[in-house]
Amino acid sequence: MDLQTCLKKMQLVGVLAFATVDSEGAPQIRNISAIHYEENALYFFTARGKNFCKELMDDGRVQILCYTRYKEMIRLSGKAYAVTDDEQVKWRDIIFKEQPYLANVYPGDTRSIGIIFCIDQAEVEYFNLGVNPIFRETYTLGHVKTREKGYMITSDCIRCGKCQEVCPQNCIDKGTTYMIRQNNCLHCGNCYEHCPVKAIERK
Amino acid sequence: MDLQTCLKKMQLVGVLAFATVDSEGAPQIRNISAIHYEENALYFFTARGKNFCKELMDDGRVQILCYTRYKEMIRLSGKAYAVTDDEQVKWRDIIFKEQPYLANVYPGDTRSIGIIFCIDQAEVEYFNLGVNPIFRETYTLGHVKTREKGYMITSDCIRCGKCQEVCPQNCIDKGTTYMIRQNNCLHCGNCYEHCPVKAIERK
Repeated sequence: MDLQTCLKKMQLVGVLAFATVDSEGAPQIRNISAIHYEENALYFFTARGKNFCKELMDDGRVQILCYTRYKEMIRLSGKAYAVTDDEQVKWRDIIFKEQPYLANVYPGDTRSIGIIFCIDQAEVEYFNLGVNPIFRETYTLGHVKTREKGYMITSDCIRCGKCQEVCPQNCIDKGTTYMIRQNNCLHCGNCYEHCPVKAIERK
Repeated sequence: MDLQTCLKKMQLVGVLAFATVDSEGAPQIRNISAIHYEENALYFFTARGKNFCKELMDDGRVQILCYTRYKEMIRLSGKAYAVTDDEQVKWRDIIFKEQPYLANVYPGDTRSIGIIFCIDQAEVEYFNLGVNPIFRETYTLGHVKTREKGYMITSDCIRCGKCQEVCPQNCIDKGTTYMIRQNNCLHCGNCYEHCPVKAIERK
């Protein structure tokens, strides 16, 4: 898998879930399909009066989730910003052309209540629970630092093998110390809870 | 539409998006299908080592989004809590029975890394963008106070009709003052922006 394939899959799925936080720090989520994809950015349409717009303006952090027919999850984490006034009409009209249903929701001139946001810096995580072992990988759009997640086995490992025994995905290999194959790890924490010498750390 | 039909639709869709906030107040979203539905509550499974579990333990606020094949969106907002130790095994085993794929992800005893959360107090919003005008309605699970959203026309209305003219959904009716049919409102804010006497308020 790679970034461009993930973006293509998101485009094919079409209707994605967008999560933001509101002014009270609460999670907010809704479906968005008014999205246009470029190789290095995505643009999406909402209306200026919606709480979603306010949350993007006030905070901007957004996570987008895509679930494919092959049971893959693709998650994009980035910060959205409103494009310049000059660019608003251009991207809006492209999105309305690509998604004809929008003209039924916002007929005629009412589309002018719309606002276009862009995300061009993001972390993109691919996660497939339908293969054995499960598979995950992370890509970047633009220049963002990815965040480490999950667990690692430190040099305190006594090589007892307990972690390997309790791993639901058999993704721990023997070595000088035992090692977690990060691409196959559920992040369930079972190794962490069972290590008798607390040699496993949460990243 | 009604609460029980919404819960049934969520169950039929199966794979839902769950949004939480992390320790930095950032939105976090993932797909969850390990859910069991009762008439007055839903129970879901995750692993104790996942960030999702930490976010639920630390904050608990969650929004769940369901998108149906009929292009309906159903959004449940509530607070999740871990069920008592006595109840953990009961609900976990019910969920593993209903969703056989879980035993592939967490084979044998490894399911014991799981934790069951319950939501029994929630606001449930139904939103259908595929009908004209669009339709929305809100229901409650348990005893929660629903939050008013959108716009209202106040008694400052001068009955000029501008709001009605610019409404993309034709959901504003004439009256002593003009009135927004709340069930058909996009919350786009076009009436609010165009009212010449600022008689329209955001709720």
